[in-house]
Amino acid sequence: MNYFRPTIALMEGYTPGEQPKPGTPIIKLNTNENPYPPSPLALEVLRNLDSEWLRRYPDPYSRDFCSAVSAALGVPKDWIIVTNGSDDLLNILIRSCAEGKERKVVYPMPSYVLYRTLSALQSAEAIEVDYPQDYQLPIDRLVAAGGAVTLIATPNSPSGHIVPLEDLRTLAREVSGILAIDEAYVDFADYSALSLVEEFDNVIILRTLSKGYSLAGLRLGFGIANPKLLSGLFKVKDSYNVDAIAILVGTAAMEDQDHKNSCAEKVKRSRFLLKKDLEQIGFAVRDSQGNFLLVTPPNNKAETIYQYLKENNILVRYFNLPGLNDKLRITVGTGEQNKKLLQSLDCFIY
Amino acid sequence: MNYFRPTIALMEGYTPGEQPKPGTPIIKLNTNENPYPPSPLALEVLRNLDSEWLRRYPDPYSRDFCSAVSAALGVPKDWIIVTNGSDDLLNILIRSCAEGKERKVVYPMPSYVLYRTLSALQSAEAIEVDYPQDYQLPIDRLVAAGGAVTLIATPNSPSGHIVPLEDLRTLAREVSGILAIDEAYVDFADYSALSLVEEFDNVIILRTLSKGYSLAGLRLGFGIANPKLLSGLFKVKDSYNVDAIAILVGTAAMEDQDHKNSCAEKVKRSRFLLKKDLEQIGFAVRDSQGNFLLVTPPNNKAETIYQYLKENNILVRYFNLPGLNDKLRITVGTGEQNKKLLQSLDCFIY
Repeated sequence: MNYFRPTIALMEGYTPGEQPKPGTPIIKLNTNENPYPPSPLALEVLRNLDSEWLRRYPDPYSRDFCSAVSAALGVPKDWIIVTNGSDDLLNILIRSCAEGKERKVVYPMPSYVLYRTLSALQSAEAIEVDYPQDYQLPIDRLVAAGGAVTLIATPNSPSGHIVPLEDLRTLAREVSGILAIDEAYVDFADYSALSLVEEFDNVIILRTLSKGYSLAGLRLGFGIANPKLLSGLFKVKDSYNVDAIAILVGTAAMEDQDHKNSCAEKVKRSRFLLKKDLEQIGFAVRDSQGNFLLVTPPNNKAETIYQYLKENNILVRYFNLPGLNDKLRITVGTGEQNKKLLQSLDCFIY
Repeated sequence: MNYFRPTIALMEGYTPGEQPKPGTPIIKLNTNENPYPPSPLALEVLRNLDSEWLRRYPDPYSRDFCSAVSAALGVPKDWIIVTNGSDDLLNILIRSCAEGKERKVVYPMPSYVLYRTLSALQSAEAIEVDYPQDYQLPIDRLVAAGGAVTLIATPNSPSGHIVPLEDLRTLAREVSGILAIDEAYVDFADYSALSLVEEFDNVIILRTLSKGYSLAGLRLGFGIANPKLLSGLFKVKDSYNVDAIAILVGTAAMEDQDHKNSCAEKVKRSRFLLKKDLEQIGFAVRDSQGNFLLVTPPNNKAETIYQYLKENNILVRYFNLPGLNDKLRITVGTGEQNKKLLQSLDCFIY
């Protein structure tokens, strides 16, 4: 007997972005981490943690964290599911709903490449609908694909565009399965689609603390949807998917909305300046509602620049994929980091 | 369209043991946590944590932790996979290997009930082979069931028995799929089956830091197998399944084998005393190699005693399952906790 299912034996694993250790002298602009530290209140929790929280199993429902989300976002506590990063929630969602050719996963591309990996793991057919050049949401084609789950990232990575609320509303009304709105980057955007969960019983909003809250290392995400939709997901969720420290630290971070908002404002200002500066040296730069920019360097030099920057201890993201292989995705860093990036690019160009 | 796959829509979720908050005045002997605190070195890591570890994504391969495991257990670093508790590893394993009626999951019962839940989630047929009264491993029937994965917990919960190495060796040789040996409770046992991973390319050993290392709240487990077997599992593992804090704290705990061993010795002494004391008041108590005892109270009073203890702020585990509903599983607590348990039982009986 082959040890693995044929699907698994044949597939490639997902390749995460490079993750050098903290302490290495690298400017890391490749995986869209927030350049500012998390809330000092979150750190305070670690300093004062009672070891009982380590010794015992965590709360399977992360109720303290749910209370903090409820207070911050104005949603009922029982409309929240808490997960080991939003990747865990994406996996739970696809695993709950999708299977084979009958129950497909549908999403526009380019978007988060993990959607494809998770569909493959579930042996579910993935229908990838190409975004047009102008990144208008291809609603009709998405609906026609007939997904058991339709996934829309907004703001989308790597494009940085945000999907108009009216388009999401139309999609929610017209799809026959679940519409999952992946708002990983919402903290840097002009608006959220959160209100749609009240209007539609098939909509779930996905959030993470990895970006806006500077807690990528903690693995904490959550979903918001009506309790009936969540009930199916709770069956698939591991009882102890979120650890006790993540619940405590995440609760403190969620309660400190001021810190999160002020860091997001700084990122948005830096994003504006970095875009101008990159345009100045001949890059085409898309408007972005995330904490990153999708840029097209002049003279088709994306891969060369990626390598050059890496040799100079600056990591950015290069996707060797159709439609993206002339581009780079650059996380917006601190003012200082962005300046060093621009200096390196200057050296490369001149 | 129904939102969920038929399997999911029809199934019941797994019910975890009750988890009251730290600080509540409850003696918690229901989910086999270690009664002693984790290594002080592990706590020290939390006190001094640099916030960069929170801000950035964790190492997808938990390499620092692998180095500590390698040093502690004498296995090569690339023979280790690190997971969000060993439940995550069980899920990864079943998801990699099992599917439908063709690729079954096989395990003896009674054992860890999660095996059944994880098989159901994967829509894989689960073959449950009953243990005989004397808990001899039913090797022939397990082999005949033809699993893509065969799961053996040893020491087993709730019975507390350990499976002889020679039986595991025979099973490893005769099954055609993977043999997963779940050693969650090994730190309280007389021996481990670790050496079998060298002998057989289809054997994986599962370990957790929840029991011996007193880190149930942290969610950290790992598997040991040859790299070829692990390569399939890595495709299914989420890139960032283990958070940065768990890696750091778990590394410190793994490096402090003395602390773990001395706590385990205390638990083993308490286990011996508690067994004697329970027998004294008329309970039948099985020998146990875990940090718990499976006991049969006199006069078929298991459920009544469970309720009585709960009203007196002592939680133990009652399984309303065939063959177990006259029994209780009691975690071995500190000397103090065991004394209070016995006092409560005395009050109940007289």
